[in-house]
Amino acid sequence: MPTDTSIQEINEIMSASWKAFHVYRKLSLKQRAGFMRAIAKELESAGDELIQTAMQETNLPEARLRGERGRTIYQLESYADACERGDWLEARIDHANPGKTPPKPDIRKMLVPIGPVVVFGASNFPFAYSTAGGDTATAFAAGCPVIVKAHPAHPQTSHLAAQAIFRAAEKTGMPAGIFAHVTGMSFEVGKALVTHTNCKAVGFTGSYAGGKQLFDWANQRPEPIPVFAEMGSVNPVFLLPEKLAAAAGEVATQCAGSITLGVGQFCTNPGLIIGIDGTDLQQFIHDLGKAIQQTMPGMMLHQGIADNFANKREEALMQENVHLVAESAQSGEDRCTGLPTVATVDGKTFLANPLLHKEVFGPYSLVVRCADAAEMREVTLHLEGQLTATLMATTTDMLSNEELVEAVKNICGRFVMNGVPTGVEVCLSMQHGGPFPASTDSRFGSVGADAIKRFARPLSFQNWPDELLPEELKEANPLGIGRSVSS
Amino acid sequence: MPTDTSIQEINEIMSASWKAFHVYRKLSLKQRAGFMRAIAKELESAGDELIQTAMQETNLPEARLRGERGRTIYQLESYADACERGDWLEARIDHANPGKTPPKPDIRKMLVPIGPVVVFGASNFPFAYSTAGGDTATAFAAGCPVIVKAHPAHPQTSHLAAQAIFRAAEKTGMPAGIFAHVTGMSFEVGKALVTHTNCKAVGFTGSYAGGKQLFDWANQRPEPIPVFAEMGSVNPVFLLPEKLAAAAGEVATQCAGSITLGVGQFCTNPGLIIGIDGTDLQQFIHDLGKAIQQTMPGMMLHQGIADNFANKREEALMQENVHLVAESAQSGEDRCTGLPTVATVDGKTFLANPLLHKEVFGPYSLVVRCADAAEMREVTLHLEGQLTATLMATTTDMLSNEELVEAVKNICGRFVMNGVPTGVEVCLSMQHGGPFPASTDSRFGSVGADAIKRFARPLSFQNWPDELLPEELKEANPLGIGRSVSS
Repeated sequence: MPTDTSIQEINEIMSASWKAFHVYRKLSLKQRAGFMRAIAKELESAGDELIQTAMQETNLPEARLRGERGRTIYQLESYADACERGDWLEARIDHANPGKTPPKPDIRKMLVPIGPVVVFGASNFPFAYSTAGGDTATAFAAGCPVIVKAHPAHPQTSHLAAQAIFRAAEKTGMPAGIFAHVTGMSFEVGKALVTHTNCKAVGFTGSYAGGKQLFDWANQRPEPIPVFAEMGSVNPVFLLPEKLAAAAGEVATQCAGSITLGVGQFCTNPGLIIGIDGTDLQQFIHDLGKAIQQTMPGMMLHQGIADNFANKREEALMQENVHLVAESAQSGEDRCTGLPTVATVDGKTFLANPLLHKEVFGPYSLVVRCADAAEMREVTLHLEGQLTATLMATTTDMLSNEELVEAVKNICGRFVMNGVPTGVEVCLSMQHGGPFPASTDSRFGSVGADAIKRFARPLSFQNWPDELLPEELKEANPLGIGRSVSS
Repeated sequence: MPTDTSIQEINEIMSASWKAFHVYRKLSLKQRAGFMRAIAKELESAGDELIQTAMQETNLPEARLRGERGRTIYQLESYADACERGDWLEARIDHANPGKTPPKPDIRKMLVPIGPVVVFGASNFPFAYSTAGGDTATAFAAGCPVIVKAHPAHPQTSHLAAQAIFRAAEKTGMPAGIFAHVTGMSFEVGKALVTHTNCKAVGFTGSYAGGKQLFDWANQRPEPIPVFAEMGSVNPVFLLPEKLAAAAGEVATQCAGSITLGVGQFCTNPGLIIGIDGTDLQQFIHDLGKAIQQTMPGMMLHQGIADNFANKREEALMQENVHLVAESAQSGEDRCTGLPTVATVDGKTFLANPLLHKEVFGPYSLVVRCADAAEMREVTLHLEGQLTATLMATTTDMLSNEELVEAVKNICGRFVMNGVPTGVEVCLSMQHGGPFPASTDSRFGSVGADAIKRFARPLSFQNWPDELLPEELKEANPLGIGRSVSS
């Protein structure tokens, strides 16, 4: 375990970061993109050592980690493309109109970087949402230096990813201080980073307790700063009657796969399944239980997460009227194993017990048996903000449950039909974020190129001569970026 | 003075607002725009009564109020156009790719309304940034109901504007609860609104103390909500040497006009002018003083603002090394008069005295005489976030002061060259907002159609059949809105 970075070191790092900001924000989009692509290359050439180290620290299987590195490289490259394309700049041009009373000046607006960004990576994505992951990539695209606080569960993996970034920075001539890597077990390190005057935004993926603490520190500063904390959710799946009647078994198989994928360690894991009680739901529960029984337990990321899962699972199962449906037939010898589990509860009990609304991080899901469609709507209205919600429904189901569908829209960031919530595509149309407490700022998400906009703010230039304007706003549009131009 | 709305009434209002939200957010863009245009019409037909009432309550002259009503109507109409055009929805479409491993689903994203918005209007814009002003118009465009807390300085004007909104709502068949008008002198009313669970965002224009208090309440809620508080600033004007040598007199005239426009009661009023000491700056100070001396004092908005101006002005003038340059030769008989005033101070004193960095709301400006270019940069680095910054500069000045220009970019939301900061054009390229403490969220502004996005959040639809998607995202694009579509 590396030692905690000292407060004095953090102050030096934040000073260097501030200096780097004033150099880096002036670099062209092309230069930023070049830096990001160089990081992608260095991650690739970090080779087997990076994969092996991550395997040791996270218990994740090799194929998954190779896939995740590929995704991380794709993120860096696709966000580099987006950075250069420049749509995220929201460039707007209003030409002067001297004939107006009073005369209208020439005004041009674009997004400019906000300042150094502190990133707290996720334990469950040691590459894609960690040191060189989505938050880091989008901050670099926006023109911001990054300070990463290494996740204590995979410090060596984080160290190797940081080395890749340092090499890329050197090869592409980035200013000293463009990136820093900080280690720390104590929360003092995180607090010192977030409350430092040179920190201008925070990216975080992890637990509610961690994210909310950063949010509070950030808002209690003399100068409050934005915190983009993605804190997970229970990702409810709604089973509508016609669909259930037609395909209970198929839907059960889909759900079982999604619940146990990656030992349930995805923030989009479906932890709640809501249906109307009856023969079809009983059939679904039966089939789901059977599939869960047949699923092999897997090793969780680390002992802390496994212990937490075991405790939360136990606590949930002990609640009144909660019944175990099934757990994996194989119990797993290792204490680090996460046991696939499905339980069930009636709608009335669910409504009355807020603990059952909370995430059990791991391969666990709770089937809520509602008395009727009205109780199903009632349950929906009592749910907190969610990253995702899923409907298993026919078109007829949708049309005859409009109120339910509208209520679900209002609590989630991504609304899936007849699919599973796990599997977060990296593309422009993806929203990964949701109403609080799924994330601290529902107006932004952490996946897709729109995430760049989290780390930028608009700046208008009024009455500037063309030769002094940034390239992005010059009349001739030398960068060829998308712009909104008034006649 | 109307009585304070009771807490019970507020609870009823917020319940009605929540119900209205679920109806209103489903209405088409066209219906929302129709409602907004109807408000514009009703404001027009509120006729002389509205103008006369505002004249009595605000001391603002008739021509100014007629102009401001025109601006308010323009805002409503242009934001209605923007609402229908739909660029603000940021619609993105990624088509399915079944050939990918794993198969890529169809994903479509657009902004959806965030929920009921509480608006606190400004005293200095009784129409344009008050009851039926920019915050209200953009919230309606986004699909959110609005609850306005009437400004206690112009309750009757606010009441008449609210009546116009109620009439428009009735004529266009809007749901009950789409708008509410709340009155209150006590801060308990504001607190009850902002901390109510059905309030999902806040718009505010006013003082730092007021805005920051709302921000804190909003962030201490169990479910924090965004606050868009525009809290004003000192709007520094930088005089660069070549420009000053060439046009000291002309620049002095421009500045004097901007400082005293509307008795200095604009949040973009230039309260700070920064130059390098020498003959040219002395000439500028002399000319500015002469112009200020010749400016007639005007009536301020109300006695509270006039008293506040007199006290703050006195306090500023009493600071060590601050010298009065000039004040209006006419002192004005009425206690509600704001006396045009210019003072000066050396750079070293300015750097050492934070009180001199604070806004004196009214027709007052402080000229800071820096020893050299280095001290001017130093002063810039010590300034807080600003709505605007202005450079009086030739192209040569700009090229030889790049570091200063870059430092200024980093502290403001709008950067004016050789113009004045007063006069906020309503157009897409306008940014009215700035780094804290100019506003609480520098990533958004309160003027121009991009302000609609403050009250909306992204929602992704994954794997939805075309017939069930919102019109905005259907494959055929029946609304003909701007969308970003992947191949």
